[in-house]
Amino acid sequence: MTYPTLRIAIIGAGNVATHLSYALKKAGNRIVCVYSRTGKSAKLLAETLQTDYCTEVELITKNVDLYIISVLDNAIETVLDKFVNCKTLICHTSGTTGIDIFKNRIENYGVFYPLQTFSKTRNIDFSTVPLCIEANNRQNEKLLVNLARSISSDARLLNSEQRRIVHIAAVFACNFVNHFYVLSEKILRTRDISFDIIKPLIQETARKILQNNPIDMQTGPATRNDTKTIAAHLELLNSWPEIKKIYSFVSQNIYKQTVDE
Amino acid sequence: MTYPTLRIAIIGAGNVATHLSYALKKAGNRIVCVYSRTGKSAKLLAETLQTDYCTEVELITKNVDLYIISVLDNAIETVLDKFVNCKTLICHTSGTTGIDIFKNRIENYGVFYPLQTFSKTRNIDFSTVPLCIEANNRQNEKLLVNLARSISSDARLLNSEQRRIVHIAAVFACNFVNHFYVLSEKILRTRDISFDIIKPLIQETARKILQNNPIDMQTGPATRNDTKTIAAHLELLNSWPEIKKIYSFVSQNIYKQTVDE
Repeated sequence: MTYPTLRIAIIGAGNVATHLSYALKKAGNRIVCVYSRTGKSAKLLAETLQTDYCTEVELITKNVDLYIISVLDNAIETVLDKFVNCKTLICHTSGTTGIDIFKNRIENYGVFYPLQTFSKTRNIDFSTVPLCIEANNRQNEKLLVNLARSISSDARLLNSEQRRIVHIAAVFACNFVNHFYVLSEKILRTRDISFDIIKPLIQETARKILQNNPIDMQTGPATRNDTKTIAAHLELLNSWPEIKKIYSFVSQNIYKQTVDE
Repeated sequence: MTYPTLRIAIIGAGNVATHLSYALKKAGNRIVCVYSRTGKSAKLLAETLQTDYCTEVELITKNVDLYIISVLDNAIETVLDKFVNCKTLICHTSGTTGIDIFKNRIENYGVFYPLQTFSKTRNIDFSTVPLCIEANNRQNEKLLVNLARSISSDARLLNSEQRRIVHIAAVFACNFVNHFYVLSEKILRTRDISFDIIKPLIQETARKILQNNPIDMQTGPATRNDTKTIAAHLELLNSWPEIKKIYSFVSQNIYKQTVDE
């Protein structure tokens, strides 16, 4: 299936803006302008996309089918103030900011939230990234869904509350998980043990849940209520009170959950 | 390279015992006996391995090169009490129990700790599983290292304290990570959103650290100190005080760590 290609202006030049605009361009859309407050970021992204850039919202090309706002959540409102009376479809890419932010300001609006973690140094295959879509009417919804389908096989309609819940779930499954990788690396480093030793375990832990319910995959001392091992671990963690606190707290939660199920 | 094959008795029939004995048999070793207190587990594993089983330690075949004790940490001592005056090499597979547990009881001993998460329903490719080896002398060390190399490309010598540290790191990187998958699934379930939506994110989060330092891969509201998003999330978590507490606690830790680095 082919999708109509769009003329798009990208507002923002962070990780989401960068990876999303690459994918949109690759699917045949034209990124006609990149905006960022920071000239350097705007220029860098625009050069990669072979397009124009600007550092003032007023200078963004008007001749587009869609504006995609991909800035920090608390900067969205400031950007929107510059779009009063704009008739063109505008969407943001935030998980937590509701669609209501557009209400009574903008005529045509929506949300285009890619559920993935984006880092500068990593290429992302968008074809499996879930894209969560919401819009103020059917026509705009259709346009955004078609755009989503042009880059991913997983376009979904989610309302703002569902999207916020998904974002919280993502914070646990990604940001908090990565924090535990960080702590794990830190613990190993104190004994000069390479983080490499733990990598096969991390990969298997992630792969396990592809076909299984995570609750059935829970292993470790806390699940078994192996108090002897837990006590030995807590003793070794005496020199890191913060890590010890987390160990104790999460272990208790795992045990409670095991008992509850 | 070929390795001498051994006659091995497996003491225990849990997940580690099961997966390890499969791998050892596949590499050409003979599992001559399986012991478990629970007749059913012993029988099941013995049948798969096409070998004998028993439910009393005294009945375990004496004619072996190696006993592998793979039982819960707090049951190791009770098993060892039955091996007084035994000259044959005995090892355990525990991450946290030190090698000292054998001292003044057993003549030839060691540790054979596979650093991986084992579930009943999952096949494990042992070829990349780090095997942490320790022994009471060079000869026993060599035997265990060779056995490890016959099933994995990653055999390492680790002393008991290093192994305990590795085990703690594994608790964070696996058990605690899985707990966050559990919470994530729980949060999504309250709004009837399938856990599938979060799976590409989980896979990418795990893949990212293969080539990168986890600290450089940290993303999310807490790293950015995005207090608005954090406040919105905490409000949505009001109905789950325990999850809210974890969210708040881990977010603070991530922020502190971001500032410290």
